[in-house]
Parts: sequence; C-alpha cells; structure tokens
Amino acid sequence: MKIGFIGLGHMGAPMALNLLKAGHTLSVFDLAETAMQTLADAGAQRAASPKAAASGAEWVVTMLPAAAHVRSVLTAKDGVLAGVAKGVTIIDSSTIDPASAREFAALAAAQGNAFVDAPVSGGTGGAAAGTLTFMVGGSAAAYESVKPVLSGMGRNIVHCGDTGTGQVAKICNNLVLGITMAGVAEAMALGESLGIDPKVLGGIMNTSTGRCWSSDTYNPFPGVIETAPSSRGYTGGFGTDLMLKDLGLATDAAKNVRQPAYMGALAQQLYQAMSSRGDGKLDFSAIIKLYRAQNE
Amino acid sequence: MKIGFIGLGHMGAPMALNLLKAGHTLSVFDLAETAMQTLADAGAQRAASPKAAASGAEWVVTMLPAAAHVRSVLTAKDGVLAGVAKGVTIIDSSTIDPASAREFAALAAAQGNAFVDAPVSGGTGGAAAGTLTFMVGGSAAAYESVKPVLSGMGRNIVHCGDTGTGQVAKICNNLVLGITMAGVAEAMALGESLGIDPKVLGGIMNTSTGRCWSSDTYNPFPGVIETAPSSRGYTGGFGTDLMLKDLGLATDAAKNVRQPAYMGALAQQLYQAMSSRGDGKLDFSAIIKLYRAQNE
Amino acid sequence: MKIGFIGLGHMGAPMALNLLKAGHTLSVFDLAETAMQTLADAGAQRAASPKAAASGAEWVVTMLPAAAHVRSVLTAKDGVLAGVAKGVTIIDSSTIDPASAREFAALAAAQGNAFVDAPVSGGTGGAAAGTLTFMVGGSAAAYESVKPVLSGMGRNIVHCGDTGTGQVAKICNNLVLGITMAGVAEAMALGESLGIDPKVLGGIMNTSTGRCWSSDTYNPFPGVIETAPSSRGYTGGFGTDLMLKDLGLATDAAKNVRQPAYMGALAQQLYQAMSSRGDGKLDFSAIIKLYRAQNE
Amino acid sequence: MKIGFIGLGHMGAPMALNLLKAGHTLSVFDLAETAMQTLADAGAQRAASPKAAASGAEWVVTMLPAAAHVRSVLTAKDGVLAGVAKGVTIIDSSTIDPASAREFAALAAAQGNAFVDAPVSGGTGGAAAGTLTFMVGGSAAAYESVKPVLSGMGRNIVHCGDTGTGQVAKICNNLVLGITMAGVAEAMALGESLGIDPKVLGGIMNTSTGRCWSSDTYNPFPGVIETAPSSRGYTGGFGTDLMLKDLGLATDAAKNVRQPAYMGALAQQLYQAMSSRGDGKLDFSAIIKLYRAQNE
Repeated sequence: MKIGFIGLGHMGAPMALNLLKAGHTLSVFDLAETAMQTLADAGAQRAASPKAAASGAEWVVTMLPAAAHVRSVLTAKDGVLAGVAKGVTIIDSSTIDPASAREFAALAAAQGNAFVDAPVSGGTGGAAAGTLTFMVGGSAAAYESVKPVLSGMGRNIVHCGDTGTGQVAKICNNLVLGITMAGVAEAMALGESLGIDPKVLGGIMNTSTGRCWSSDTYNPFPGVIETAPSSRGYTGGFGTDLMLKDLGLATDAAKNVRQPAYMGALAQQLYQAMSSRGDGKLDFSAIIKLYRAQNE
Repeated sequence: MKIGFIGLGHMGAPMALNLLKAGHTLSVFDLAETAMQTLADAGAQRAASPKAAASGAEWVVTMLPAAAHVRSVLTAKDGVLAGVAKGVTIIDSSTIDPASAREFAALAAAQGNAFVDAPVSGGTGGAAAGTLTFMVGGSAAAYESVKPVLSGMGRNIVHCGDTGTGQVAKICNNLVLGITMAGVAEAMALGESLGIDPKVLGGIMNTSTGRCWSSDTYNPFPGVIETAPSSRGYTGGFGTDLMLKDLGLATDAAKNVRQPAYMGALAQQLYQAMSSRGDGKLDFSAIIKLYRAQNE
Repeated sequence: MKIGFIGLGHMGAPMALNLLKAGHTLSVFDLAETAMQTLADAGAQRAASPKAAASGAEWVVTMLPAAAHVRSVLTAKDGVLAGVAKGVTIIDSSTIDPASAREFAALAAAQGNAFVDAPVSGGTGGAAAGTLTFMVGGSAAAYESVKPVLSGMGRNIVHCGDTGTGQVAKICNNLVLGITMAGVAEAMALGESLGIDPKVLGGIMNTSTGRCWSSDTYNPFPGVIETAPSSRGYTGGFGTDLMLKDLGLATDAAKNVRQPAYMGALAQQLYQAMSSRGDGKLDFSAIIKLYRAQNE
Repeated sequence: MKIGFIGLGHMGAPMALNLLKAGHTLSVFDLAETAMQTLADAGAQRAASPKAAASGAEWVVTMLPAAAHVRSVLTAKDGVLAGVAKGVTIIDSSTIDPASAREFAALAAAQGNAFVDAPVSGGTGGAAAGTLTFMVGGSAAAYESVKPVLSGMGRNIVHCGDTGTGQVAKICNNLVLGITMAGVAEAMALGESLGIDPKVLGGIMNTSTGRCWSSDTYNPFPGVIETAPSSRGYTGGFGTDLMLKDLGLATDAAKNVRQPAYMGALAQQLYQAMSSRGDGKLDFSAIIKLYRAQNE
C-alpha cells in the first residue's frame, strides 16, 4: 500500500522503517534532513511537504510531538488536508489531548476523510522491534480498516471506542503509571531508610498487593531489577520530560471535565521538580532521587 | 506444641482456629467473651489474662489492633512478659510501627525471650483459609524457629531481615497499595468522564504499564472485575479505616526518619475524607467515590 | 479622549461606564446585545466589530474572559489590529498568561502599536465603584501614558515592569490567595472539630502569624467576618470557577518555566472538587465545605 | 508569688528570668546544668526534681519540648503531681496536642489541681522581651487566676475556651502559617522565574488579596523585607524542624477527628524535604529553596 508518513523522530523513524520492511510504499516528510535521509536510504520517497506526502497516498500516518504540530501539519496551506484524496483515512499516532483528536476528526470528516487517533505504548524499543501497542479511537469500521497498516508497526492493536478514546486510554494509563512510579519510589526509599534490604522489599511487594509494573518490571531502586533503567544510571527508558508531558495532558483533560486529579497533579509537580533540577532527560524512575537525599 | 494466643479479633480468631486444626494446643485470651467462647468451643483453653495465656506456653502469638495494645499486653502486671518462660519466642502479628517492634524486642531480650515481628497480608479471607503471608523480622535463627508455627496459619513465610523489618515490609507495601488504589480510582473516573468504556480502559491498563493489583485484581470501578469489592457495593475487603491506619503508620515512620512522603500523605488525606463522610467501613477502593460525584 | 472598548461583561461593563462618567468618548463592542444596549443608553457609541471600535480611537481597552478571546479580538479580519491607527496604545485588562501577553505585544509592535497588559483586582464591586487596582506591564513610558485612562476606572495603577509582568503579578497574587484560602478553611474547620469557638480562633489568627486577607477580611467560616461571602451563603464575591481559572494560569505558567507548584496544584484540585460537585458559582471561600462534612 | 518552673530551654529560660524580674520567687528544674546555673545566678532556687520544684509553690509552670516530656514531668515518681499542694494551678506552656492537654487536666483535677494549657507565640525574641502571646485553655476562673502570672512573661493573654483550646488555637494558627509560607514561597519563586522584580511582586501582594504575615512581615525571598530571616541567610527565626513539629501536631489532630488536612499534610512533606536535605535548623521560610533550584 502507498502510505504518507509525517514525523520521523525517535518514534516515527523506526515506525516508518518497519512499514517499509512490511512491503509498503512510503512517501515521507520531516523538517529534519537527517531523518529524511535515513528513510530515503531505506527506500522511502522524499516529500517536500505534508501535502506532498499525502498526495496519492492510500493512508496517511502522523507521529508528532504535540497537538499544535498535528494541527499545523493537517491544516496548513501545504498540509495533509490540502493534499489527501477523499476517502483516505488519516491515522494520528501522536499523544495529544482527546478534545483535539475529536476536533481533527471533525475537520477531516468535513472533507470526506476518516481520522483515527492511535497513540502507542512501548517506547523507542517497541518502535524499533515493531512490538508497539496501538490504542485506536474511531468507528468499528475505521478500526478494522487501519489494522493492516498498524500491524506493520505493532503487535497489539486495541479498539478503545469512538474518536478520542485512543488518547483517553493512553493518558489514563500513563496517569496511573506516573502515580505508581512516584509511589513505589517513595516506598522503596522509605524502606531503605527504615533498614530493610531493597531487594527483599521489592520481592515482597511484587508478590503482594503493592505489585505493579513500576515495581516488578521497572523498579526505581538501583539493583532491584537488573534490566530496569535504575540499574544503569536512569539512562534510556521513558524520559522524565515525556512523563511530564503526559501528566500535563491528564490533568488538563481532568480540568476540562471539572474533575479533581489530586494524585496526578501532585505527581506532576514532583516530576517537574526533577526537570527543574536538570534531570528531565533521565528516565522517569529517577524520581526516587527526590526521596533519597540522605542516603545516596 | 503449646501456644499462648492473645487477640481474637477478625484476624486473630480464624488464625487461632487454624492453629488448633494444625494440632497445636492453645491457651487463649481476649477481652471479648464471644471470641473466647468461639475458641473454647473449638478446643482452646481459656486463660484469665495475657500472663496466664503465656504461662507454660512454648510459643506466644499476639494479634492486636495497635502498638499501644501490644505494649500493654506485653508489659502490664498480668502481661505476657510476666508469665512467659525464659527462652520462649514471642511472635507479634499485629501491624505496628517498626520502632515499637524494636523496642518490644529489646524488652523481651532483656528477660531472655526472642521477639519477632510477623505482620500479615491476605485479609480475613486469607486468615480463614490459612493462606496468609507472614513478613517476619528477626534473626535468621528466630525466623527458622517460628516457621513451623506460622505455617499453621499461612502459606508464605518471608524473612525480611532483622527485628522491625517485617513491619517495614508491611507498611511500605501498603503505602504503595494505598497510593496505587487512589491513582487507579482517579484514572478510571477520569476515563469515564472522557467517554471511554471503563471495562475497555481497565483491560488496556492491565496489559500495559499501568498494570497493578489495584487495577487488575481489585479495580475500584464497579463491574470491571467481578470478584472485587467494587462489584458488590464496596462491602467486605479491606476497610478504608484500616488503610488509613496503615498510611498513618507509613507517614509517621517517614516523619521519624525525616523523609518526605508526598504521595502517601496525600492519599492518607483522601481516605480521611472518605472516613469523614461516613464511609470508613467501606472497602478502601470506594475512594473512587471522591471522583465520581458527577457521574454516579 | 476617544476610547475603543471591547468586552462588556460583568467587569467590562461597569469599567466602561466609569470611563463615560470620567468624560471620555466611547466606541464599544460586545457580542451580547444587552450589554451593548446598556452602554449605548449611557452614551457610548455602538461599534459593529472590534475593528470598528478601534477605528479612530486614541486608546483601545479590551476586557475578555481568556487569551483565546483576546487573540481573536486582536487578530481576526475584523479585529482591533485591522482597525487601529498607528501609534495608538492597546490596553488589555483581561487576566491571561504572561506568554500570550508578550506575544500580543509583539504583534502590536510589528504594526506600530504599544500594548500593555493591565489586569485588575478588586472584583465587580471595585469595577462598579471605580476602585480597581491595575497591575501594568509595559515600558515606563507606556505606563505613564496609560495612567490617565486607567485612573478613570481604578484607584491604584501599579507599574509591575516590562510587558507581561502585570499578568505575572496578578497570577502570583491569586496563587497565594487560592492557597491561603484553602489553608484557612482547613484550619478553621479543624479548630471547629477540635472544640474551639470559630470566632475566637479567627480573632487569634488575625492578631498572630496566621494573619492574612483570607482570614481577617474574607474568613470562610460563617459568622466570623460579617461582611464576608461566608456570612451570606457564599453568594457574591469571587466565584470558585474564576479562582480555578487563575490557579490554572498559575500552574500552567509554572509548567512552562519547569518549576514545581505543589501547593497551587493541590489547591487547584480542591477547587475543582468544588466545581465538580456543582459549587463552581459559589464564592471560592466555600471551599471550607470540603472540610466540614461532619459538622454542617 | 512562689512559682515552680520546670523546663529552662531556649524559651523557658528567658520566660523564667522575666518572672524573677517581675518579683516572683522561683524554684526551678531542668536536666541541663548550664540552664540551672543561669537561673540560679539570677536568683532562682535550684530544685532537685520536678517534685521538689512544685513543693511549696503557689503556681507551677512547665515549658517542655513535647507531650511525652510533660507526661513524665507530671506523673513520674518525683514529678510535679507528687509534690504539688492541693489547689495549686499548673500552667503548661509547652506546645502539645489538645488531647494530651485534656488528659493532663483530668489527672490534675483528680488530685485537686487545676491545669491550664497556655502555649505561646512570639518566639525566643518575644520570650526575652516579655512580649509573648499566651493562648489559654481552661475555665474562665482559671484564666482569670493565671493572668497575673502570665503577664509577667507576655503581653497578650487570650482566653481560648475550655481546656485544650489553647493548644487548638496554637496548632491551627501554625497550620495556617506553615501553609501560607509555602504558598508565598511558591509564588515568589514563580514570579522570579516569570521575570517580575521580587520586591515589586512583594509590594503588590502586600496591598492586595495575597497579603499575609508570611508575605508582608516574613517574606521568604531575600531582600524583600530587610528584617526577615530571608534577608540574613535564613538564620534566627522559627526553625524548620519546629514548624515540622507543629504541622505534625496539626495533621495528627486532624487524623484523630477524621478530618482531611490536604494542604497541611503537603506543606508538612515539603518542610520534611528541607529537613531531609539538612536544612532543618534554618528558618522555615527557607522552604523557598525547594523552588529556586534553577535561579540561585
């Protein structure tokens, strides 16, 4: 299939490469020349603009940092909506707020295009390995139609409901993730101060009611889980500033529906404190540093 | 073996019954006559005081609401320490602060008795079924010695380290539990307001990085997990006031070691708000009611 | 002087009326016909658009709900910038984020107009009485030049620094206000529960280190300050939803400069809880209801 | 009058000295020899125990660090209650929880002694100058009777209500103080980051609705108030660890009456973070350091 792909960053580039490997024809666009070159070397066609990438495509995929970028890529004079043929479905894999996703879907619908929100989880590792999870918001028909494209980039393609619910699933999951990580960090640091061996504590939690991904897979205490970023200096993984962005989306969405988000708002401030002290690029599990001042 | 057992409440009574079933001889004490009668009917000997229960016992087990009760049961004129033979090990399964556990161990040691802290997880269900987890703090030798007794009441007997670390493990685990439950409640309620089907959202979390016991086993949103208290009106389970007690132990312990406990302290206030509005007896997952005002 | 005035809401209408009383000539615009009629009756000229209101004016004043409205009123095809003469200063009294204020100043500067941010405090009462405080961001020269206009609507015209600092002053002040009110509410409710007479407690605070405007002028406990909204059912005053808006501006601004806003973010969630339970129109001191569940 | 005075620390010593200056006869006790010597040099009589200090006294004053010390000083074998004559009133100026104050009053009443709680505000400066405020809990008659003694040490002697309400007033006031200081610190640091001159911001707050003692008298930003600890390196003043103690009393009291203390609990964690990083001896306004990481 002929796919227009816009946004070749840390996530987008490996995703696009996987589509090429899956046998699709790609017309790609990004502002960064290096990214364009990488994809061109792998066989993609360079497009001069989002509009050009979308022209003649049977599918369009966008993977961008924030809603403002998606809006611009879609609606600019040389944007996707100006080039895409009627009937083509636009798949946005960016993580953005649900309200914007719904707005973009309405814009697309107005000129005869379907739009599905399909944010991902799995990180750059999952993007490279083609094992991402896609959370898809759109009609059942749209979901069925995009599966063949998305399965070239990921393993689990989950239908979350109507337009916007892919984003809802993503931000609600990451809201829980940001909170549980802060909670596990707090408890592990407390246990250390109170004199228990962190590995023993981790082991108990992981077989008890404190069990969670932030504890059993990604424990923030160095040495508890050998494969976690905490055991390699908090490098790699999911950056604090990215977690900050997602918690911002969650608390903003909560604000819009007038619902309190006590725990998420507090967690957000804690990650902000990390970013403020210059640790925004570290894996988000480095939040445990806020608690271990005495012990490190 | 001859065991003195003091404290026959919701947890203590079924634990003592299981010791009887396991073939031990029990001398029991509780202030509540009904509890005494239940155990007597099952074959235990009534003791007139903690001292009497401890006299002649090869082991002493205490299961009490708080550190003040343990102190009194141990040190009163007619208390355990006044009656227990030299060399006998005292096992305290109450959930109390680690510092008190260490203090009690020192008191016991001063008169030639070992003392291990062995708080449990598993709730009244686990107590009845004999499937509790015991988190044991004490020397390796003490741990080995108490295993035969504890295995009459539980399935997992975990050595956490020196005296007090059993309590540390318990309160750190429950600190995480109280936080993750509040976080999952916040995210599930937000998802509902943003228009995603709660079952779909729960399903996505449970296979993603938001996965945790509070989500996949005990989800606070009614109907997501059929066996969870949320699906039966928040009855049964682990009461809000008990969670409050444990979070109080955690934040107090943090205060004593001068460590911030941001997330735990906030979660504690939220459960307090539940207790304040009269919902202290509901399962702690009812905390989602604080978020669903608009939707219920 | 000839003034174009756009935005005739609860604040804008009385402000415009005071400018008329001060002898200025006004050309006004608002989407609401009733508001237009009120001003026309008082002698103002109706304008068909922001552009029309700005045409021929020596000064332009805007008083709008949020940055999005200011952007639209300034930059739309029939907006202020399309009609205003070169050299005329635009005064925006809306409460918006400092970054947007700086952006609008740049847009105005590009076509030869000065733009000062001049948000107010003093509420609808101050607007009617002409006793508002204006916090002015802009050059010293611009500040001097706008004083004669602003003194027709307010009593204190304070120069805060360069463009945007008027907004900074406003949101930082209201950040403190939102926090102190929540704190005073918490303490007054706690005092009540602990058995002290709220009037006695209020009196002690007000002569001690807990002294603050939220306590000595606007105490949230009914009956402590007879003139406060709390003593008349939390009607009138400064609505919870308006406080929510300002705390949102503060935490968003903090996010943009990567600084934690722990207390503000928590206070924001508490006001959100009020809004969520349907109390968004009550005076913001009604936040004490979150604490008095047991006692009311 | 003959007064027994127990507790000659940073506050107690200057208070006792003022009583001597006011012409009273003092019998004093403290565990620290230096403190005893200072008072003896000034004319006080050394007592060998609290009991001895209380024997023959017409009044007893205690000024101790925490409830546990008061309990011990009152109830020990050589304690106050063992030595005091029937009918003598015991004045406790320590800051402790209201429940303990009520318990001590009951113990005293059982043997025919009145007990009033009379915690102070005003710090070591006020203690030395004799300008303390006393918040008195006890009957109207007891209040009238203790006034002549307290007026030898302070300027304002306020009757708060029945036993315990002196402590309630103290901890509720300091709860507000701890919260407003954290709030002002957050806002001042935010203002700095957003580009406003801190002196200008302070000035605006102090004439607006953000006005509070933490802003207009004790502003945490260096240089805004020349006489504040912030302008002399956060030395002197009211130590962070003392604020931590008082916030601990407040949140514990809230826990006992099952009332949430959201803002106080969060502020407590922030001061705890300060203590954890080794800043517990700095004035509590140093909390602004948590926010100024980027700017200092």
